[in-house]
Amino acid sequence: MKKTILALTALSLSTTAIAQQWNGPLAYLSKGQNPDGTPIEYTGDLGEVADQALVKDTYAWDFVEGITTEVGPRQAGTEAEKRGRDWAVAWLTKHGFQNVADEPFEMETWVPGDYHRAEILSPFPQPLVIQPLGNSASTGIEGITAEVIEFENVAALRAAPDGSLSGKIAYISHTMTPTQDGSQYGFAGPARWVGAGIAASKGAVATVIKSVGTDWHRNPHTGGTGFPEGVSATPAGALSLPDAANLERMFDRANGKPITMKLTLTPERLGTTTSGNVVGEIVGRDPSLPPVLLACHIDSWWNAPGAFDDGAGCGIIAAAALHVSRSGQPLRTIRVLMAGAEEVGLFGSVAYSKAHIDEPIGVGLESDFGADRIWRFESNFRESNSDLHAKLAASVARFGVANSTIVARGGADINISRDQGGAIIDLQQDGTRYFELHHTPDDTLDKIDPAQLRQNVAVWTQVAGILANEAGPIKPKD
Amino acid sequence: MKKTILALTALSLSTTAIAQQWNGPLAYLSKGQNPDGTPIEYTGDLGEVADQALVKDTYAWDFVEGITTEVGPRQAGTEAEKRGRDWAVAWLTKHGFQNVADEPFEMETWVPGDYHRAEILSPFPQPLVIQPLGNSASTGIEGITAEVIEFENVAALRAAPDGSLSGKIAYISHTMTPTQDGSQYGFAGPARWVGAGIAASKGAVATVIKSVGTDWHRNPHTGGTGFPEGVSATPAGALSLPDAANLERMFDRANGKPITMKLTLTPERLGTTTSGNVVGEIVGRDPSLPPVLLACHIDSWWNAPGAFDDGAGCGIIAAAALHVSRSGQPLRTIRVLMAGAEEVGLFGSVAYSKAHIDEPIGVGLESDFGADRIWRFESNFRESNSDLHAKLAASVARFGVANSTIVARGGADINISRDQGGAIIDLQQDGTRYFELHHTPDDTLDKIDPAQLRQNVAVWTQVAGILANEAGPIKPKD
Repeated sequence: MKKTILALTALSLSTTAIAQQWNGPLAYLSKGQNPDGTPIEYTGDLGEVADQALVKDTYAWDFVEGITTEVGPRQAGTEAEKRGRDWAVAWLTKHGFQNVADEPFEMETWVPGDYHRAEILSPFPQPLVIQPLGNSASTGIEGITAEVIEFENVAALRAAPDGSLSGKIAYISHTMTPTQDGSQYGFAGPARWVGAGIAASKGAVATVIKSVGTDWHRNPHTGGTGFPEGVSATPAGALSLPDAANLERMFDRANGKPITMKLTLTPERLGTTTSGNVVGEIVGRDPSLPPVLLACHIDSWWNAPGAFDDGAGCGIIAAAALHVSRSGQPLRTIRVLMAGAEEVGLFGSVAYSKAHIDEPIGVGLESDFGADRIWRFESNFRESNSDLHAKLAASVARFGVANSTIVARGGADINISRDQGGAIIDLQQDGTRYFELHHTPDDTLDKIDPAQLRQNVAVWTQVAGILANEAGPIKPKD
Repeated sequence: MKKTILALTALSLSTTAIAQQWNGPLAYLSKGQNPDGTPIEYTGDLGEVADQALVKDTYAWDFVEGITTEVGPRQAGTEAEKRGRDWAVAWLTKHGFQNVADEPFEMETWVPGDYHRAEILSPFPQPLVIQPLGNSASTGIEGITAEVIEFENVAALRAAPDGSLSGKIAYISHTMTPTQDGSQYGFAGPARWVGAGIAASKGAVATVIKSVGTDWHRNPHTGGTGFPEGVSATPAGALSLPDAANLERMFDRANGKPITMKLTLTPERLGTTTSGNVVGEIVGRDPSLPPVLLACHIDSWWNAPGAFDDGAGCGIIAAAALHVSRSGQPLRTIRVLMAGAEEVGLFGSVAYSKAHIDEPIGVGLESDFGADRIWRFESNFRESNSDLHAKLAASVARFGVANSTIVARGGADINISRDQGGAIIDLQQDGTRYFELHHTPDDTLDKIDPAQLRQNVAVWTQVAGILANEAGPIKPKD
């Protein structure tokens, strides 16, 4: 145990050293050295290609700049998402991917509508900035007016007696701290995920939450919410953090006087529409071997052009596939999957798995946590294929990536790997500022640090290249 | 000259030392020492009161928290501004100010309307975040659709031939860098101040500008614009910085194809309405002496509760007046002026000067540059009353404030001091992050650092207290 801790300490020191250099090229790489002066052991030409990607990649930036500028927001199931998929198909084709396709699937589509307003009528009249949550019902353009009841968190809401919220608007707060691994999302997320459903089950006519986020800008964090079986959807929206804090101060200053809000949210359900999964391949020398699946999602929420979430992820995986091909045709096929309709319920990931469940995937990886640097390597075959796990982890240490004993579970868009019980790798990104931007209007291109984006590409190139040249099973059957 | 530079260097060192301590109490003050270990020379009890304000003031925070929470946005000439003035009158009265009044004046009132939208129709369809500029005309709810013509800055727009913008929407960019003294506002501001008027004079049907600001959030910076005599107002709006950058990338990627925008802005002119100037006094021992005038403005733009601009300023001056009174009744009366309708054209300041021009003011000071620390002292009597200038500057050095030879010109709300040719002091605040927030929805309470707010109160207490106990003329007549 002590040995592990010492090893982790050493790794974290070198991580720090690299983190301080993001704004410039990593000089030691041009000398073929690790940060500690030992020679870099390259895997054929792949290591050199990955090193070059670290300082020179332009594919990932071109992808994310292009889709955010030329397409913009891409709400799932809408014509904007279709334009996004068409754009991605054209980009992949232009860059030489093979077997490029847009595989359609049908979905039930929710759109946010045009009118989003929360107004305190008394005792302190003023507008608050709000946006609807995915699956929110509509208030109608006429809005609804009701007293707001404050809950410190979901636990307090759960404790409210049945029926006690009849005719009221529930307001749900929470606390959330930035974390490098994003783990606070699990702590704070329920306010959004289940808050509206619980409030509705207790009679609330609507729910307003403090945005699940860590910034202080007047840009609400949307995201999906759900209603339990048998509970009708109600209107549900997220206040920006400054507006939520303002509302909480109103409760402090109202001396028990009721706080009345007029809420107007006009989302609509469009019924069944078509979405799709964009795929493309770098075909391997032996197409009979199960492919390496690199995934991201092509849709975004309506309120932002989706730079961090997930234009960057799609740019990273596409760039990595191209760089691997520069080091020679890989043994296995590398398939990129840019899934549709992730934000609203992983519909694309589910559809892809259903359509392809009988075609074995060699290993699945997803990029969907922004564009900041990768800091940790995880797999789900560390015990069953320890040599390969160790080889992969060692190959990216020079990019500031630590090894880990955490068992990778994979991201939203690789359902097929989970459904097949297959190999999964997680290349964990630094999430410290991810929840400043997540699902807000602020998720724009300017938030991406080009140097950290290139580090992602370098790590993905190195890892995908090793995997695509692995002849044996990546995660041997138990 | 060399001596001056050395003295300034010494001052700037101690400023740095203090700047690093904002997050904790200034321990040396409790020892009665300056940062360099020399004893603090107090002016009677005033210095002790100012020191206490630095670590204990609650008045300023209570004012700005109260008005931003209980009133919120206060657009000039509207009922919301009236509620703000009523709130301020009640606060001043509750805290023991005398002669509290709301002095009415009439104004021509512009309001932003409810619908603000910019949508690129081709070649890259997507919505952009926009808000109207003050004095913008309405497009009507049906909007206007036109090709956008890009100008790098106002100089490029000026160079466009007359009539060349007929039927077009002008887009005006600029560059702006954060500066401690806010001086870049003078460089970048013309895009907003005169851009729409110039474009309209060349035939443009509307103008869209890159927000005059230094942040990267999707919150446009509004503010007044003007149209020259004989040029009809056109619709005019500001894109957030990320949206402006996106539009500029569209021009780069369009390969000369026209960029078409549908612009919908629905401001209205309400005609003549009533605004007012809130005043209150700490009456001095000799009310026949010209008063010390401490000014701020009570209105804000509609899009934010106006914490930095200018709830904080009003809190600072009111708190300082109260602290001075704690050290004993001052010789001169201290009058606070919370001017109405500053944002839309200094209407309150003009009205106050017109109404009171025959009542001499002893000295005028204004706080209207946010809530970050004061770093420089300036007066317009350094030559005519050098002893007093030196005494004042020396009295606030321990709070990290440097002396300066710059001639104070005073802020927007002390027109009367300029009109009377009277004494003016500027207590310059650190403006490094002011233009991240200026005139945006993001100007909310959470942006205020309580420790820096208290430093403002301490400096104002010290300066206002010395001035209010000065028997002779502050700026002797030339």
